[in-house]
Amino acid sequence: MQDARQIGYRAGRTSAMNVNGKPMRTIWATEDQVEILDQTQLPHELVIRRLRTADDVARAIRTMQVRGAPLIGAAAAYGVWLTARADPSDGALEAAARALLATRPTAVNLRWALEAMTAALRPVPPPQRAGAARAAADRIADQDVAVNRAIGEHALALLRALEPRRPRGGGAPPRLNVLTHCNAGWLATVDRGTALAGVYAAHDAGLPIHVWVDETRPRNQGAALTAWELGQQGVPHTVIVDNAGGHLMQRGEVDVVVVGTDRTTAAGDVVNKVGTYLKALAARDCGVPFYVAAPSSSIDWRIDDGRDIEIEERAATEVTEIAGRAEGGARVTVRLTPAGAPAANPAFDLTPARLVTGLITERGVAPASRQGLAALFPTEGARRS
Amino acid sequence: MQDARQIGYRAGRTSAMNVNGKPMRTIWATEDQVEILDQTQLPHELVIRRLRTADDVARAIRTMQVRGAPLIGAAAAYGVWLTARADPSDGALEAAARALLATRPTAVNLRWALEAMTAALRPVPPPQRAGAARAAADRIADQDVAVNRAIGEHALALLRALEPRRPRGGGAPPRLNVLTHCNAGWLATVDRGTALAGVYAAHDAGLPIHVWVDETRPRNQGAALTAWELGQQGVPHTVIVDNAGGHLMQRGEVDVVVVGTDRTTAAGDVVNKVGTYLKALAARDCGVPFYVAAPSSSIDWRIDDGRDIEIEERAATEVTEIAGRAEGGARVTVRLTPAGAPAANPAFDLTPARLVTGLITERGVAPASRQGLAALFPTEGARRS
Repeated sequence: MQDARQIGYRAGRTSAMNVNGKPMRTIWATEDQVEILDQTQLPHELVIRRLRTADDVARAIRTMQVRGAPLIGAAAAYGVWLTARADPSDGALEAAARALLATRPTAVNLRWALEAMTAALRPVPPPQRAGAARAAADRIADQDVAVNRAIGEHALALLRALEPRRPRGGGAPPRLNVLTHCNAGWLATVDRGTALAGVYAAHDAGLPIHVWVDETRPRNQGAALTAWELGQQGVPHTVIVDNAGGHLMQRGEVDVVVVGTDRTTAAGDVVNKVGTYLKALAARDCGVPFYVAAPSSSIDWRIDDGRDIEIEERAATEVTEIAGRAEGGARVTVRLTPAGAPAANPAFDLTPARLVTGLITERGVAPASRQGLAALFPTEGARRS
Repeated sequence: MQDARQIGYRAGRTSAMNVNGKPMRTIWATEDQVEILDQTQLPHELVIRRLRTADDVARAIRTMQVRGAPLIGAAAAYGVWLTARADPSDGALEAAARALLATRPTAVNLRWALEAMTAALRPVPPPQRAGAARAAADRIADQDVAVNRAIGEHALALLRALEPRRPRGGGAPPRLNVLTHCNAGWLATVDRGTALAGVYAAHDAGLPIHVWVDETRPRNQGAALTAWELGQQGVPHTVIVDNAGGHLMQRGEVDVVVVGTDRTTAAGDVVNKVGTYLKALAARDCGVPFYVAAPSSSIDWRIDDGRDIEIEERAATEVTEIAGRAEGGARVTVRLTPAGAPAANPAFDLTPARLVTGLITERGVAPASRQGLAALFPTEGARRS
């Protein structure tokens, strides 16, 4: 519990996620700095970090204190604002954008947000750029919230069409079982989430929703972040290891899979957290619908084939070591492998469009295809080639 | 390093796995007790446990100090011997067999070994049962080693037929990339392993073999056990999270998948460590051959359809907590999830026969079908119905 958390939400906005019962965003700006919830400390501690320069923002993205494709887009936008306050010259802004873009190679929202900031600031005389940058970054953050709310409404319609069923071997009441991978929730965005926006909308609407939360090794965004934020909102959920989802689908215990995306191609291929592809295969094999919550900011209109997207390779220590809370409350990192065992750590994988039932965008649900996306986004779809 | 480990291997046997350069089995009997390598302490410590009663053996199986379908079969056989030493009456032996059978519900080797012990002891007058039981248990252990050696030879022929290839983006020499899930190695058996028997045979034969080691949450048998035993034998390997295998297959970095099995049906369905099904789906989607090393002791001739097999549900704490080695060397358990987060923990899943390229048995490689298995095992295949 920290007082700062109430700064996170300004009155008059659309309703927000709660932390300890109070509304809060994942990122917000004060007069002269940006504040974030440090996601590397969750679920064990609620820590607010203050970022004063674009370098601070780049470090927060690189170390995954902020993560999630939509949120790193918004964070980068605020990073440009921090630079514009200190040095609004073209050179300084370009250098900041370059440094921010280099933090994570896979998610396209980062490029999208930085291009939006550049477009907004280029015509503005340097002395007015700080104000313009703040307004533009706030716009990007607010737009993320509005987009996620729209995605949530479209996802709610899909969930309403499913039939709740009884859990196996028990007299428990029927429920709707959603499986999700990684964290594409409130914490991956400015507010509401993408994949979880529909879950929250359904929960708010009184649907008997229950979420299977993939742990999501190696960084455990599911076990640490998704479980935490679902718990904060009171949404019933169960954590499972990444290996278990296929078995649950075989047994009829998953009604729908909904995940986020770090980059969606113009033809509907989805690059998302490593392991997503395996769940998409199991969903196809078991006849379970597989949806991807894809805000248009995640769509890379310049690429058709997901195999052309660079997959970030992260540190081996993310595989060989893990941090958690020891008895007594201390955060402890332990090694899981024999000393010196080599490890590889690709962070994303490719789910081909053929495995995706639909892309849930802010404009509605599109088939995962060039035609499907172009029908909802005619301008972007045409601009590309 | 413990002196006891050299007791583990008797001269004159087929060549064994090495621990710190010395041959060692995973289980062995002295005059009056059974000794095991405590697998819950690996890879961080080499601890030998002494088991004096069938209850000790049952506890070791239940807590997974010994695990792996073939090894728990052999351990149960030695448990019957310990009972026969103390009380060779029918009642005592039946009670011991019942208690041992109840330790783990999924693997069929346990039932197979206990039935073999019962068949061997029933005609023997009680005063001679201790000696007969010891001989029968030794036979089961030795037979496991011989079976695994034969599986290794058949697997070697399959591996020889593959073309080694260069790793992506490097001038490294070509290698043969095997992906395996869980631990179906030396540690899962009395010696040599099932899935890894072929890897060891290939390594001994000078093939440039490299193993992708699935971590295998929640109990990390891959990261803790497979990586350790491959390291002990000097086989090149890389640990990956369970989520990463599909991506590696998409990128052409896996030439073959080889896993073990806890129970194989007469029609070739495979129940193995949870997550195996996901790898089989990815292998099928990427055109990678998917083999299951299946000693005949793992085949349940009474069942055709894998959906009829009980899947063990283990403790939620295996998901929410993990143990590892902290800086300084202490073994520490840490919590990964928010306090009170619910978790589910199915331990196995079903890989349908249609996804299995072949079953590597001690008699050769069979298509995963009733006909394929019956051709290699005509007696067992016919006896069933």
